[in-house]
Amino acid sequence: MKKPKKKIVVIGGGTGIFAVLSGLKNYFDDISAVVSMADDGGSTGILREEFGILPPGDVRRAIIALSHSDNKTLSELFNYRFKEGRGLAGHSFGNLMITALERLTGSFDQAIKEASKVFGLKGKVIPVTLQNARLYAELENGKIVSRETNIDIPKHDGHLRIKRAWLKPVVKINPEAAKEIRAADLIIIGPGDLYTSIIPNLLVKGLKKSLKQTKAKIIYFVNLMTKYGETNGFRASDFLKTLESYLGRIVLDYVIVNSKKPTPARLRSYISERATLVENDLKNSNKKPILITIDLLRPRGFLRHDPEKTANIAKKILT
Amino acid sequence: MKKPKKKIVVIGGGTGIFAVLSGLKNYFDDISAVVSMADDGGSTGILREEFGILPPGDVRRAIIALSHSDNKTLSELFNYRFKEGRGLAGHSFGNLMITALERLTGSFDQAIKEASKVFGLKGKVIPVTLQNARLYAELENGKIVSRETNIDIPKHDGHLRIKRAWLKPVVKINPEAAKEIRAADLIIIGPGDLYTSIIPNLLVKGLKKSLKQTKAKIIYFVNLMTKYGETNGFRASDFLKTLESYLGRIVLDYVIVNSKKPTPARLRSYISERATLVENDLKNSNKKPILITIDLLRPRGFLRHDPEKTANIAKKILT
Repeated sequence: MKKPKKKIVVIGGGTGIFAVLSGLKNYFDDISAVVSMADDGGSTGILREEFGILPPGDVRRAIIALSHSDNKTLSELFNYRFKEGRGLAGHSFGNLMITALERLTGSFDQAIKEASKVFGLKGKVIPVTLQNARLYAELENGKIVSRETNIDIPKHDGHLRIKRAWLKPVVKINPEAAKEIRAADLIIIGPGDLYTSIIPNLLVKGLKKSLKQTKAKIIYFVNLMTKYGETNGFRASDFLKTLESYLGRIVLDYVIVNSKKPTPARLRSYISERATLVENDLKNSNKKPILITIDLLRPRGFLRHDPEKTANIAKKILT
Repeated sequence: MKKPKKKIVVIGGGTGIFAVLSGLKNYFDDISAVVSMADDGGSTGILREEFGILPPGDVRRAIIALSHSDNKTLSELFNYRFKEGRGLAGHSFGNLMITALERLTGSFDQAIKEASKVFGLKGKVIPVTLQNARLYAELENGKIVSRETNIDIPKHDGHLRIKRAWLKPVVKINPEAAKEIRAADLIIIGPGDLYTSIIPNLLVKGLKKSLKQTKAKIIYFVNLMTKYGETNGFRASDFLKTLESYLGRIVLDYVIVNSKKPTPARLRSYISERATLVENDLKNSNKKPILITIDLLRPRGFLRHDPEKTANIAKKILT
């Protein structure tokens, strides 16, 4: 099938972006992944501390998702996590590669470009900002939680809602991200952890301005599952409302909600994580965003968006 | 220039093998580097301890030397040594890559093949053995030094000569190394640290048998400089005699000694290492090995064999 010449920008981070990118890459030639720079947990967190670099984790995941490499081992290597070694155990090889390339080339941006070459990436992976900032959140009880990892893996009472999130210091958008967004035909936000993977992008100064300037359709994939400590008890309308509160005057064109119920067996492993299926309480109206309710669930494994099904949405909206 | 269809095997390790391989790769299509598995210092030593793997250091150096990759950054990355990070500082990225690939593929051998693919290697890098052993040396005063790194960077009186060296446990030759040696047209031994890079190959059970079976010409590049603690005060005849004592009944076809004197300025940095220029006290006779005395020195930088000049020797002998 001939790939349509359309520019797609996916805004996100974490594992959510993987399904979208790995689906899109089979149908589109011009894909940019604008990824969050808020991660500070695990291997990424240690490398941020010890090398003072930008977080490599979300970049690594986006590179794997967009990888066209025939060398399966190479992709597996990039995701490999050391299990032994003092100071090595827990580190992802891909994170170390990006860190070493950053030191070699002198820039995080250049490091990503070199890693992208190795993996034969056709798309681009673009950090939303090239400046270093940390994520903060204020809970409904007034308590302030600092650092992304403490929001992602809550040490606080995860039933408490997040009142607001911000980056400190204020950081500016990566000019390349701004350019891609302005020139896009379609912008996909999500799926992904709302406060730790999606909103950290919107908090970057200049991102909303780029969204205002673009002629692209902007669509939002609501998550399949809630997340304790972040979107506990959220229904589809809560996801949408929260996102919209960070978008300000930017109007989404489409909001896309999964309609397919997974089997109880597949839901079972989520009980210990205190995650539940997101209920769709959105109704169609004659106002934007247009609601699309459709089966987005991948047929087996973890409850994730299906790459093919999400790519189909993009294809439909662009034709 | 059309490359002659000749099979060349280089036996060595350390930095010595680099000059030979990087020169040969421009003229020959079938090159195998049989590398020592004795290294246990630095990053390599730590990875051996913590992962129980074979030493990646000599493999890494041979891969770089044979690399045909146009991506200069990729080669630099492979050689990059982390300077920061608890547990990371001191590690070479290439060593970590080989270690991760070993874990992923389940074999050291397969790890090398995968890394070779990434770098577009035309030649092969073959560990002399796939079994784990440590190097030992007995000094002329009867003292036994264990581990390659303690011979390479002597903690003992480096004026003492080494009486004999051995591997413990006894390890068998990698069948692939045996096969390449048997099928070779030319076998190049050295240059390289005699006791820590060259002899550890000859100590592997089965290597001498392969050398006996081959119809290849066997040539030996005598080092340019002595090495404190290993070949202190050695003249060319000492290098040759020592090597021959480990070769047993195998007769070398050629011994190649540098004739070019470096400037005093270039020798100066070697004073602190207590290394001196190897004096050529060999004379031509009608017995093998045939002595070739020729300028082998690279024109600037460290006193190393020049890749082009060493490759020229191989070309001459093979035609």
